[in-house]
Amino acid sequence: MIHRLLSLAAAALLLGAPARAETLAPREAPAKSLPVPGTVSPQMQAIIAQPLRMNWDKPPTTPEGWKQLSDSIATTVAPQIPAMAERMRVKIEPSTIDGVRVFTITPGEIPPQNRNRLAVHVHGGCYVLNPREAALPEAIFMAGFAHMKVIAVDYRMPPEAYYPAALDDAMTVYKAAIKMTDPKNVAVFGSSAGGALTLEMMLRAKRDGLPMPGAIAPGTPMSDVTKQGDSFQTNAQVDNVLVSADGFCDAATRFYANGHDFKDPMLSPVYGDVRGFPPTILTTGTRDLLLSNTVRMHRALRQAGTEATLQVFEGQSHAQFYRDDRIPEVKEAFDEIALFFDRNLGK
Amino acid sequence: MIHRLLSLAAAALLLGAPARAETLAPREAPAKSLPVPGTVSPQMQAIIAQPLRMNWDKPPTTPEGWKQLSDSIATTVAPQIPAMAERMRVKIEPSTIDGVRVFTITPGEIPPQNRNRLAVHVHGGCYVLNPREAALPEAIFMAGFAHMKVIAVDYRMPPEAYYPAALDDAMTVYKAAIKMTDPKNVAVFGSSAGGALTLEMMLRAKRDGLPMPGAIAPGTPMSDVTKQGDSFQTNAQVDNVLVSADGFCDAATRFYANGHDFKDPMLSPVYGDVRGFPPTILTTGTRDLLLSNTVRMHRALRQAGTEATLQVFEGQSHAQFYRDDRIPEVKEAFDEIALFFDRNLGK
Repeated sequence: MIHRLLSLAAAALLLGAPARAETLAPREAPAKSLPVPGTVSPQMQAIIAQPLRMNWDKPPTTPEGWKQLSDSIATTVAPQIPAMAERMRVKIEPSTIDGVRVFTITPGEIPPQNRNRLAVHVHGGCYVLNPREAALPEAIFMAGFAHMKVIAVDYRMPPEAYYPAALDDAMTVYKAAIKMTDPKNVAVFGSSAGGALTLEMMLRAKRDGLPMPGAIAPGTPMSDVTKQGDSFQTNAQVDNVLVSADGFCDAATRFYANGHDFKDPMLSPVYGDVRGFPPTILTTGTRDLLLSNTVRMHRALRQAGTEATLQVFEGQSHAQFYRDDRIPEVKEAFDEIALFFDRNLGK
Repeated sequence: MIHRLLSLAAAALLLGAPARAETLAPREAPAKSLPVPGTVSPQMQAIIAQPLRMNWDKPPTTPEGWKQLSDSIATTVAPQIPAMAERMRVKIEPSTIDGVRVFTITPGEIPPQNRNRLAVHVHGGCYVLNPREAALPEAIFMAGFAHMKVIAVDYRMPPEAYYPAALDDAMTVYKAAIKMTDPKNVAVFGSSAGGALTLEMMLRAKRDGLPMPGAIAPGTPMSDVTKQGDSFQTNAQVDNVLVSADGFCDAATRFYANGHDFKDPMLSPVYGDVRGFPPTILTTGTRDLLLSNTVRMHRALRQAGTEATLQVFEGQSHAQFYRDDRIPEVKEAFDEIALFFDRNLGK
């Protein structure tokens, strides 16, 4: 087989007839001991060095079990919010908008170009986790780093309500937001399930004839929950957050979907018609289980002619780009998103 | 350890004091059987399904051995060039520029906006492989897909000449190119070693006070040959082209460097001062051994304020984005680079 001796370009040229994927041989990759890379900050090294998420393969199996897990997370996060808000110099006010629970996060100082701008945040957590204050860290970081007012949607989640309640609540807030200011001045953002919801909101807005916002920032979106995507395999047990396509996040999504077809673009937006989407910035990491979800979404948007840009961070697993505002790479990621918003939003 | 139970955002907040990377535990990733992803074209599936490059860990050990391998590749590629040129509708003319061997590749039709534009191509092959016609596929694809005139540099390689001969030859052609047209109308591109050379050329141009070109496209650049970069580990034996940081490409680079310090930015441009670089588009794949080399370079450019954009293709190993012009993803990658050039080059 001379072609395997050949160089990068050379091997190109002996392309045989395409075969079906299922008849093609898999790659047998050996077990590996992956050192923590020295190419990231010491703070990010500590995050990368964390062991696999405990109980990643033992998700709750009852509604009560999910509720308990969700509450225990919220209870742990809540006391950390005041110090975070102080570091980021933002004020947090809970309220409701047309019956939907929200937090409004207002930076201490808002520069002139951001005074008529507004960002709507939809949190992550596999559609089931991060209620109440646990929804807030990413929203606080955006308000703090981008110096923009943010409305964070504390959408209903199972067992309180199932698909499409989260999306319904997000749309209620979006509709209110585009009355508060020009839609071109509105950004929508969120990561993981929040990244998917951001994309699903655009599909829903198109369907309902609503105007698009000025820009969106879906971080490492769960854009394909059907387990398609190469990094579900390559980064399995490399990503210390999601760990595996067959882990807790899949179980949580199933709990939310409540029997709804996973391939519906309202759960897997990579299969949606994304023409007409606003300028989009996507963020992921090289160890992210959703690296493929993110880059496939980026390609789908580019193919549809959307102004879409991609940032990929060295060594990071799922959603670690918003792990802690004191990590240099976190500031870097948010500064980049803030710049993208500034360039693309109206004033 | 309650924090490992926590959700994405929540676990954030219990960040301890950073430790040194060498004292942090590595991640133990199990052996995996990685199926060919169904999320790419059948043609790309066939490329992904190819076994690991033969003899990836048994590089030549003598100058004669390298010469023989290099010649055998060139001999295999050369007969394929005419059909490729015909498909891409380009004309190829060998010549020399100030003593440096080049090929000029001219598209059959050049649209008005490209008539005063020119792209300089520096080929890949770990600084040792792909002489003569073997240098041409990527250059032909650019000329054909972007409808631009391309000058491909057939730079000297070991054992004919060692570091920095390749860079010297590329600079000779660059200096000639910026006399043929306005430097703002010039693009520079290349992949792998050619991606590194593209970046090294910018560093050299800065040092020598030469004007920057209008845009550059380093594909999966060998931007760090010191083996730093997480994907050297995570994608080892996942990438079927380079396979390993300790494979033939490292050996070839050593042959070229001829004792020169690998950490010199003229061999590892990620360590260079990249302020003032022109708009840059980088391309890689999720299985690429140089995924980290590419995204780290992207971040370095962004940190320096360069307009840098990144495209990452699903499932692709090193430099497979220019494997064959008949693969849809190849056209997609080049169309994107062509659009980037069109937006950023002068006319």
